[in-house]
Amino acid sequence: MSAARHSTLDFMLGSRADGETILKGLQSIFQEQGMAESVHTWQDHGYLATYTNKNGSFANLRIYPCGLVLFDLQSYDSDSQGKEEINNLLNKVEERMKELSQASFGWVKRLPTIVAGGAIHRYWPTADGCLVEYDIDEAVYDEDSPYQNIKILYSKQFGNILSSVGILIGQRVICGKEDYTGKDVLILGGGDGGILHEIVKLKPKMVTMVEIDQMVIDACEKYMRNTCSDVLDNLKGDCCRVLIEDYIPAKEGREFVYVINDLTAVPISMSPEEDSTWELLRLILDLSMKVLKQDGKCFTQGNCVNLTEALSLYEEQLGRPLSCGILEGDCLCPFILVTMGILHWKKAKP
Amino acid sequence: MSAARHSTLDFMLGSRADGETILKGLQSIFQEQGMAESVHTWQDHGYLATYTNKNGSFANLRIYPCGLVLFDLQSYDSDSQGKEEINNLLNKVEERMKELSQASFGWVKRLPTIVAGGAIHRYWPTADGCLVEYDIDEAVYDEDSPYQNIKILYSKQFGNILSSVGILIGQRVICGKEDYTGKDVLILGGGDGGILHEIVKLKPKMVTMVEIDQMVIDACEKYMRNTCSDVLDNLKGDCCRVLIEDYIPAKEGREFVYVINDLTAVPISMSPEEDSTWELLRLILDLSMKVLKQDGKCFTQGNCVNLTEALSLYEEQLGRPLSCGILEGDCLCPFILVTMGILHWKKAKP
Repeated sequence: MSAARHSTLDFMLGSRADGETILKGLQSIFQEQGMAESVHTWQDHGYLATYTNKNGSFANLRIYPCGLVLFDLQSYDSDSQGKEEINNLLNKVEERMKELSQASFGWVKRLPTIVAGGAIHRYWPTADGCLVEYDIDEAVYDEDSPYQNIKILYSKQFGNILSSVGILIGQRVICGKEDYTGKDVLILGGGDGGILHEIVKLKPKMVTMVEIDQMVIDACEKYMRNTCSDVLDNLKGDCCRVLIEDYIPAKEGREFVYVINDLTAVPISMSPEEDSTWELLRLILDLSMKVLKQDGKCFTQGNCVNLTEALSLYEEQLGRPLSCGILEGDCLCPFILVTMGILHWKKAKP
Repeated sequence: MSAARHSTLDFMLGSRADGETILKGLQSIFQEQGMAESVHTWQDHGYLATYTNKNGSFANLRIYPCGLVLFDLQSYDSDSQGKEEINNLLNKVEERMKELSQASFGWVKRLPTIVAGGAIHRYWPTADGCLVEYDIDEAVYDEDSPYQNIKILYSKQFGNILSSVGILIGQRVICGKEDYTGKDVLILGGGDGGILHEIVKLKPKMVTMVEIDQMVIDACEKYMRNTCSDVLDNLKGDCCRVLIEDYIPAKEGREFVYVINDLTAVPISMSPEEDSTWELLRLILDLSMKVLKQDGKCFTQGNCVNLTEALSLYEEQLGRPLSCGILEGDCLCPFILVTMGILHWKKAKP
């Protein structure tokens, strides 16, 4: 699958931009490429030149009077020759711009090319809106289950990554610095087996994992063995069991010292009344509290410590129906790029 | 300082794109904004519509025949009203596109807005070319020393970050899992005091830090106390000393069990013959080996474990004049986004 490549060069001149001189100075570069020029001039806002190439690529040169000059090239071509041609053109524009402005040149920035429309999503913005590209080369697994689209993506840096429902889930999930020895633990969701694998090592009495989607488990058992090791090979072990069910086995009457919610993160939405995710979160935490032993603890992902508003709202929303729950916000270690907050509640005496 | 904001919407239609229908369908949206339309048509490569606004903003709509439709809006405005207007326009385009393609709609992606020309650099691509934006809001320190431009940037997530000579340096640097107790250690560079602080805690005999730039030390002492704590307050302590010098006190005849190079990372350049950085690296490692005790170890940053070519080349380049050095590539923990390789050499028997 071919994709469009978007390359940019940002110049800041040390003085106000002389648009006519820049346009004239760069003209021969685009003529050599066989690109047709079309210029729009504003009275007070500088120039926009658009260059179109017969092969379908095009470029914009936007000259702002203050000295900011932005060059954007878009092309639909993914072979390496195309990349080299693009780089050559960018190099020529950069050199010529430096010649034209000479002593008054400020700086130039060239960001990595942005690829649009490729088969693989490489851009996974953080919850607080920073653009982050991962070195994802291929999807090793891409199937629709009855519940969701399941993708396992390969990154050279991070290995196989489970990406379901658009949430990038890393390889190691934090379960708090707790002593799980001899304890009953409940994991909600957790289909990649990462938490189960970590906790089984800590010699619990029994870990129960409740995951609705058998396909997630099957895919992770096969493609994410560095995360789950062999804990998903059998749905039953000496100190663990995996139930393929729609959450929380409250009916069993079993109680847990720890409940770890690996189902969903704090919603970014600021409209708790309208967003059904909040309703779901309240329900999950409510059910979690029901099966939690007195003085037991409940963990959930906090999405991003930067989103303090969302975290406060979460606390407020969940604090209301759960007067028994004490919220302790705890910022743990970096989770890929975003520092996630792991929120935990302690069930107080009734 | 105002900046240009670049917002994008990427659509993939489920069928081939009917350009005329799309252009006609979106027309009223741009007319409402008072934007003038200009259309370029290719015989085989679809359409490019450019919309210019009187306020200096403009947009491109590129319709590729395969069904990829890219909308790019560039505006020079940083106030919040401008942002809201941009979002409204993007929302309208997104809604209309969905209406127009209905059942055959594939997906839409909206990446975070890219800001060009702002006073603060928020984009710090990784060494292997992934685009990464950090939540950097301000420069708390920005001065030119006789050696370099020194910036200390504030990130909500990471706190104050020292960015000198364009290399983003995090708060914790890895010194290997070594026992430094009672040992003589040499740190080359390391102006932020992070390594010094870490090693002083490990009860060495004496850590000598050699940093050329007093201004880096002064700035970090003031603005990066969560990195250096109080180790830079005095240039001399019970088990540490800071020399403001141009590297390696070979003349002293002192020998070290550990030499930690915090001066520079493995160059990304693939032309060792032309790039003087390689020459510098060879020199540094050569001098390091001279002051290293037998069986001592030398550490340096590997820049990025993904750049296996660069790392091999480094090994090859440095291995030649240093036949006494044994290279052990060791991939350590994630360093902000990029997993850095920490390379270490052990001085073998002569």
